[in-house]
Amino acid sequence: MRDLYSLAIRFTNGELYILDQQLLPQEEDLILVKGVDHMVEIIQMLKIRGAPAIGISAGLALARFSMGIEDRAKVRSMALKLRESRPTAINLMVIIDRMLAHLEKENFHQRFEEEAVKAFEEDIELCDRMAEYGAQLVEDGDGILTHCNTGRLVTAGVGTALGVIFKAHEQGKKIHVYVDETRPLLQGGRLTAWELEQAGIPYSIITDSMAAHMMKLGKIQKVFVGSDRVAVNGDFANKIGTYSLSVLASYHDIPFYPVAPYTTIDFDCESGDAIPIEERAAYEIRGARGRFGDVCWAPVDAPVCNPAFDVSPVDNVTAFICDKGVFSRDELKQGALKKL
Amino acid sequence: MRDLYSLAIRFTNGELYILDQQLLPQEEDLILVKGVDHMVEIIQMLKIRGAPAIGISAGLALARFSMGIEDRAKVRSMALKLRESRPTAINLMVIIDRMLAHLEKENFHQRFEEEAVKAFEEDIELCDRMAEYGAQLVEDGDGILTHCNTGRLVTAGVGTALGVIFKAHEQGKKIHVYVDETRPLLQGGRLTAWELEQAGIPYSIITDSMAAHMMKLGKIQKVFVGSDRVAVNGDFANKIGTYSLSVLASYHDIPFYPVAPYTTIDFDCESGDAIPIEERAAYEIRGARGRFGDVCWAPVDAPVCNPAFDVSPVDNVTAFICDKGVFSRDELKQGALKKL
Repeated sequence: MRDLYSLAIRFTNGELYILDQQLLPQEEDLILVKGVDHMVEIIQMLKIRGAPAIGISAGLALARFSMGIEDRAKVRSMALKLRESRPTAINLMVIIDRMLAHLEKENFHQRFEEEAVKAFEEDIELCDRMAEYGAQLVEDGDGILTHCNTGRLVTAGVGTALGVIFKAHEQGKKIHVYVDETRPLLQGGRLTAWELEQAGIPYSIITDSMAAHMMKLGKIQKVFVGSDRVAVNGDFANKIGTYSLSVLASYHDIPFYPVAPYTTIDFDCESGDAIPIEERAAYEIRGARGRFGDVCWAPVDAPVCNPAFDVSPVDNVTAFICDKGVFSRDELKQGALKKL
Repeated sequence: MRDLYSLAIRFTNGELYILDQQLLPQEEDLILVKGVDHMVEIIQMLKIRGAPAIGISAGLALARFSMGIEDRAKVRSMALKLRESRPTAINLMVIIDRMLAHLEKENFHQRFEEEAVKAFEEDIELCDRMAEYGAQLVEDGDGILTHCNTGRLVTAGVGTALGVIFKAHEQGKKIHVYVDETRPLLQGGRLTAWELEQAGIPYSIITDSMAAHMMKLGKIQKVFVGSDRVAVNGDFANKIGTYSLSVLASYHDIPFYPVAPYTTIDFDCESGDAIPIEERAAYEIRGARGRFGDVCWAPVDAPVCNPAFDVSPVDNVTAFICDKGVFSRDELKQGALKKL
């Protein structure tokens, strides 16, 4: 298999490496992936995250670790382990299913490789297209709010929502990015801040609870967010807190745009109600843990809720920015995604 | 001066002690206040916090440390230092002004004491009255969302919003409290969780970004929050994130109640636009710091915004729960507070 390089995922000399996002921004460390179980753990610990990157790295892991294994039942079981590692991101299921479709063929090893490499390379292109479409909507002087982390760390390319921001900056538009810190796992405060700093784009970190206040003050002209699964009616799941932003943006008459490639659309999913929401461990809410330290501020056994995602309804979406084009709320409601 | 006792503030044998809220819930430590500068530092470091408790403790500190000082200019300068220690909570200004009104009198030392003790004792009563009024609105089976910390730690009595919750529980109503963790200083996840645990009231901590999702799921029937300053038109300032909840509650048709004593009303303030908003230090947003540890997860010099409060408009208020009664939005808009 030929070498592949992105910020988050590297395939070099036949080995798969993942940039450990739990250590960022304090430390940049590449993990050598040792097997399927190891890859599942890397995904579940959010060392790699973001719907496209999860799918692409799982596909590469399946291609890499099924090499030389002729026992198809065993390969299928490896594939299913990866497929089930996280429940919400659809890309993971899509790429594993694409690969499994070749399992009964004679040359399935080669087909696996081709599919995994194709997914990687295609994603770079999809990102570029979304960035182009999205950046057309950004105006000089815009304050842009974004949530979680949706850049080079979560795709093989420039990213989804953050890709739009990179592109607008590249085009010379003067923008200021308000970065939701994105509790509990702080992907905004840690990772988006880091990516924006690397890119030299002006930004301010805010707590998630400040978004409404900033909107009211007139600091925010657009909201761009990613997605982990888009239903065909235009509802979409994304990192917890996105639904809140969708309501707040609508209340303040601020355009609200999810940005995701067609690979994030679940064509079997009629509406957001059908999207499963992952519930994660309590310690994430009781404190914070990472390369920066490990603290628990709540009472040690405090009961918590920890849904990792929420669903924003199409009614709060101004337009969905996809590699296939920009679909307005009305177009989404008229079934534009079904026709893709 | 006679002894006074509350969870947050103790006056014993002529000495003023403050329960250090920065150490909670990991450690319960009483600070012996050594002077006015020390008290200012305690207030600014949020070792004591919440509008009523800030006012009451500042009043006690002024009475205690002006004892025996005849130089009225010096006493006034002590008073002004305390008065300026935090800008948003009105109670602080009110109590210091009440005391300063006696400064030119012969027996001002005794008057200072009387005012400070009166403020403490009155607050207990105000809390009880708000709790009674508010608990009447709570129904059996309610899920209640609250923000920040508004209980025994922030008043001399049972609290404001949390006092309502304590009272409803005491009345045997089955309730479940959703506690916003309240970034950046985590007063919900640390202090409200601790107070509810002590009281044996069922609760779950959520991140601030989850409130909308919980509302959508139908888990929340009422929202009770405190206030740091109420304008006479019914707009009010409270911990950052409250405005967001006011919009989200309104969108989901969930009753939204600020709870505050009349001492929190700023009768000179026509509307929320006139309330000054404190901006706090960047390190609070870049990480978290307390008895539990000291971590920085963001890039070390990451730019941030850190307004400590926001303003919720009367239009999002279902009713204002005050010790003087419950005022509906319409009553507030018709100037009910002006007539108090």
